[in-house]
Amino acid sequence: MKESKEFVKSVTAMDEDFAQWYTDIVTKADLVDYSSVRGSMIIRPYGFALWENIKQALDQRIKETGHENVYMPLFIPESLLQKEKDHIEGFAPEVAWVTHGGSEELAERLVVRPTSEVLFCEHYKNIIHSYRDLPKLYNQWANVVRWEKTTRPFLRTLEFLWQEGHTAHATDEDAHEETKRMLEVYASVCEELLAIPVLRGQKTEKEKFAGAKFTYTIESLMHDGKALQTATSHHLGDGFAKAFGIQYLDKDGNLQYVHQTSWGFTTRVIGALIMVHGDDRGLVIPPKVAPTQVMIVPIAQHKEGVLDFAYDLKEKLSAVVRVGIDASDKKPGWKFNEYEMKGIPLRLEVGPKDIENNQVVLVRRDTGEKLFVSIDQIEDRIVALLDEIQKNLFNKAKASREEKTATAATFDEFKKNLSGNPGFIKAMWCGDRACEDQIKEETGATSRCIPFEQESVSEQCVCCGKEAKHMVYWAKSY
Amino acid sequence: MKESKEFVKSVTAMDEDFAQWYTDIVTKADLVDYSSVRGSMIIRPYGFALWENIKQALDQRIKETGHENVYMPLFIPESLLQKEKDHIEGFAPEVAWVTHGGSEELAERLVVRPTSEVLFCEHYKNIIHSYRDLPKLYNQWANVVRWEKTTRPFLRTLEFLWQEGHTAHATDEDAHEETKRMLEVYASVCEELLAIPVLRGQKTEKEKFAGAKFTYTIESLMHDGKALQTATSHHLGDGFAKAFGIQYLDKDGNLQYVHQTSWGFTTRVIGALIMVHGDDRGLVIPPKVAPTQVMIVPIAQHKEGVLDFAYDLKEKLSAVVRVGIDASDKKPGWKFNEYEMKGIPLRLEVGPKDIENNQVVLVRRDTGEKLFVSIDQIEDRIVALLDEIQKNLFNKAKASREEKTATAATFDEFKKNLSGNPGFIKAMWCGDRACEDQIKEETGATSRCIPFEQESVSEQCVCCGKEAKHMVYWAKSY
Repeated sequence: MKESKEFVKSVTAMDEDFAQWYTDIVTKADLVDYSSVRGSMIIRPYGFALWENIKQALDQRIKETGHENVYMPLFIPESLLQKEKDHIEGFAPEVAWVTHGGSEELAERLVVRPTSEVLFCEHYKNIIHSYRDLPKLYNQWANVVRWEKTTRPFLRTLEFLWQEGHTAHATDEDAHEETKRMLEVYASVCEELLAIPVLRGQKTEKEKFAGAKFTYTIESLMHDGKALQTATSHHLGDGFAKAFGIQYLDKDGNLQYVHQTSWGFTTRVIGALIMVHGDDRGLVIPPKVAPTQVMIVPIAQHKEGVLDFAYDLKEKLSAVVRVGIDASDKKPGWKFNEYEMKGIPLRLEVGPKDIENNQVVLVRRDTGEKLFVSIDQIEDRIVALLDEIQKNLFNKAKASREEKTATAATFDEFKKNLSGNPGFIKAMWCGDRACEDQIKEETGATSRCIPFEQESVSEQCVCCGKEAKHMVYWAKSY
Repeated sequence: MKESKEFVKSVTAMDEDFAQWYTDIVTKADLVDYSSVRGSMIIRPYGFALWENIKQALDQRIKETGHENVYMPLFIPESLLQKEKDHIEGFAPEVAWVTHGGSEELAERLVVRPTSEVLFCEHYKNIIHSYRDLPKLYNQWANVVRWEKTTRPFLRTLEFLWQEGHTAHATDEDAHEETKRMLEVYASVCEELLAIPVLRGQKTEKEKFAGAKFTYTIESLMHDGKALQTATSHHLGDGFAKAFGIQYLDKDGNLQYVHQTSWGFTTRVIGALIMVHGDDRGLVIPPKVAPTQVMIVPIAQHKEGVLDFAYDLKEKLSAVVRVGIDASDKKPGWKFNEYEMKGIPLRLEVGPKDIENNQVVLVRRDTGEKLFVSIDQIEDRIVALLDEIQKNLFNKAKASREEKTATAATFDEFKKNLSGNPGFIKAMWCGDRACEDQIKEETGATSRCIPFEQESVSEQCVCCGKEAKHMVYWAKSY
C-alpha cells in the first residue's frame, strides 16, 4: 500500500511576519482554499462548521429579540439604489454590475447587492400602513458583494457572508433603542462565545455608514496591534423613509415617517478570532464555537483493547461535548500537530498504560498544560476544563488589549506610543474632520470609535489643541 | 383609536382559475411579496420560516449521510464555465453576466452561478490526490440565478435558494450508489415531512442535466394534474473529471479519474407543497414543517380569566408543539379565516364556557372537523391529531395522484386520457428522441421519468409502435 505523505505542518512565526502567519493559518488549518475567482474564497468544511456554530448562536439571539428572518433578492436595479443620495455615493464605486441576461443586454443595469437597505425600504413601503404594523423587525442571512481591490480571506473579500438586520419603528427613540440593543447582541456574541473583548462606541461622521444618522460599532484588537471593526449597528433616522416614502398613520390619524435601523455581522469575525487567539502552532478556537471540542488520539492503537476503549470513550463523551477521534494510521505526533494547527481546545490521549491506570491524558491547546484525569471523573473534568479554557482565552485577550492600549495627551506622545507599542491610543478630539484626516495622514491611525464609556485624558484635542469634545480610540486597522 | 381595516381574505376558486388561485395563495398567506427586481421574489417571514424548517430537516439528513457543508464563490469566470462542453451549452443561454466592477470593465466576464459544478471541480482538482482523499462528500446552501423569461413565485424565479451536493468517488459504482442514496433522501423529505408522494425514476437523455451521465428525479403531481420535477440527483460519470483533470493515485499507484455526482433541492418545493395540499380556503401546511402547528384563538377574550387561561395553555403546549396565540382585538371570525389561509394544521378555540367545562375546541385544517377535547388530555390529543393530519394529507395526495394517473396503450388513448383527466399517463416508449418530441408536440406532455418500478402496459411504443424499451410517466408539467 502507498502511504499519503505525512508531513508536519508549520506556520511562519507571528512576530516575524504577521501577514504571512495569517495566510498560513487560514490555509493550513483547512479553513479556506483559493479559487480562480479573484478576491473570493472557498470556505472549506472546517471553516464552514465554525461559521455555522457562530451563525446558529447569533441567529438564536436575533430571534429571541423578536426578529424574523426573510430573504430579499440578490439584484438591485440601478434606479432603486439611487434613491437615497448618500447611500449610492458611498456604494457605487464598489459594486459589481450585471449588464446582460443570457445573450441580451439589459435595459437597466443591476447591482449585485452590497447591502440591502433599498430593497427593505421598497418592501416596507409596501407593507407598512398603520402604527399597528410597527415595529417591523426583519433580518436576513445572505451573501453580499463589494468590489474590493485588495483582498484577504475573511478580512476583506469580494463576496462575503453575513446577516443584515433591517428594522422600522414608529419613533426615533425606538430606533435608537434598537440600534443599541443589536450592538449589545453583537458584543455578547463576541465576548461570550468568541472570547473576543470589544470596545463599544460610536463612529465619527467620517467613518459612519453611507446614509446613516449615526453608526455604533464594536472594535477589537488583533495580536499585531491593529484594530478590527467587528460589527456595526446603524441608526438610519428617517432619511431612507423620506427617500422611499415609508409612512404610517399614527394613533391620531396623522401620517408619519418611520425611523429605521440596520446592523450587520459578517464572516470577517473569523478573521478576528484567528488574529486574537492564534499562536505560532496554529489556530486556537474558543470551546463554545469549536466544531470539535475534544479530539481523541489513541496511543499504540494496534495494541489490543485500545481502539475499543477509545471508541467507547467517544460514545460516552458525545453526550456532553463535541468530540472527534482520529484512529487513522498516521503517527500520534502528526496528529498532535494537526489538531493543534486546527485549534481544537482539548486533546485526549489514551494508550495501554492509561487504560491500566484507569485514566487519560488531557492536553490544553491554550496553555499546553498536560493533565492526568481519572476515567471516573472524565465528563465533569472535560466540561469544567472547556469552561476554564473559554474564560482563559477571554482574559488573555483582554490583558493583551490592555497592554496594547495607551493614552496620549499630545500629538508627540500619540506618535511615540503608536510606533513603540502598536495598539489603541486613547486621545482627545475636537470633533473636526480636519484633525481626523491629519492624524491619519501623519500616523496611519484612524478613529475607531468614540467609546460610550468616556474618560478625560486631557482638555485639548490631541491634534489641534482646541477644546476637546470626545475621547476617541485611535488605531491602525484592518 | 383608529382600527386597521379588518377584511376577510379570499382566494380565487382552484377549479375556476388554478394559476390565479396559486398567485392569490402565495401573497394572501404572506409567503412572498413582489419587488421591482424582475422575476425575483421577497420571501416573507412566514414563507421563510417554512423554508427554514424544510432546510433544517434536509440539512440534518445530508449531514447524517456523511456530507459536510462548504461555501463556494457566487461568481464563475467565463473560461471556467466553458471547460465542460455540454455544461456550458446547457447553461449559457440562461445566465446573468457581470461585466463591470465599480467603474471598470472586467477583462473577463463573470457568470452569477446558475449551479456550481465547475467551482467544485476546480477545488477537487486542488485537494484530491490519493484514494485516501476519497470520497469527498460536500454540500452547500446557496442562492443561484437563471435568467428565466417567465417567472412565478417559488416555481420559477430568476434567483432561487437551494442546496447543491457535489461529491467525488473512486469508482463509477460508488458514484451510482451516492446518486441513488441522495434521491432517496429527497424522496423521504418529500413523503415524510412534506406529505408529498413522489415517483422515483430516471430522466430521458433529452431531459437529463447538462453534462451528466444520467439524472435521477422525483416527480410529484399537482392538484391541476400537472407534474412538477421536485428534486434531481445526477450521476456525472467522469466527464467533468476529464475536463478538469481531477485524478487520484489508486492503491496500486495508478492515476485514475474520479467519478462525480451532484444533486439539488430548491425553494421550488414550496410551490409543490402549495399545489398539492392547498384548497379554496388557502394554504394547508403539513404539521411536521408548519411554522405554527396550533394557533390559539381566545373567544370572548374580554371576559375575566379567558386570556390568562389561554396564555397558560400556550405555555403548557409549547413544550410539545409549535404553538401561537392571537390575542389581538380582531374578531374571532377574522382570525379563523386568517389562520385557515395560512394553513395552520390545528386551531384551538377557548372561551368562558369551555373553561367552565374544562375543555377546548380543536378544528382541523385538513378536514374542518371540530373536536371537543378535555384539558386533561390536551397534549396527547394534539400530538396524536397532528400525526393524523400529517398522514391524512399524504394519503389524500396519494389518492389524488392515483385518481389522476392513467395508462395508455395507444396514442389515441394517450390523448384522450390526458385531455379528459389531466395527470400522469403511463405509456410505453421505444427510447427514441423523435417519439418523445412528437408526443410533446401533439399533446404538450413531456417524459417525466422512466420509473424504477417498471410495469408493462403493452409491447409497443405508444407513439411509433416499434418495440418498447421502457414504461414512462408522461405529463404536462411546471
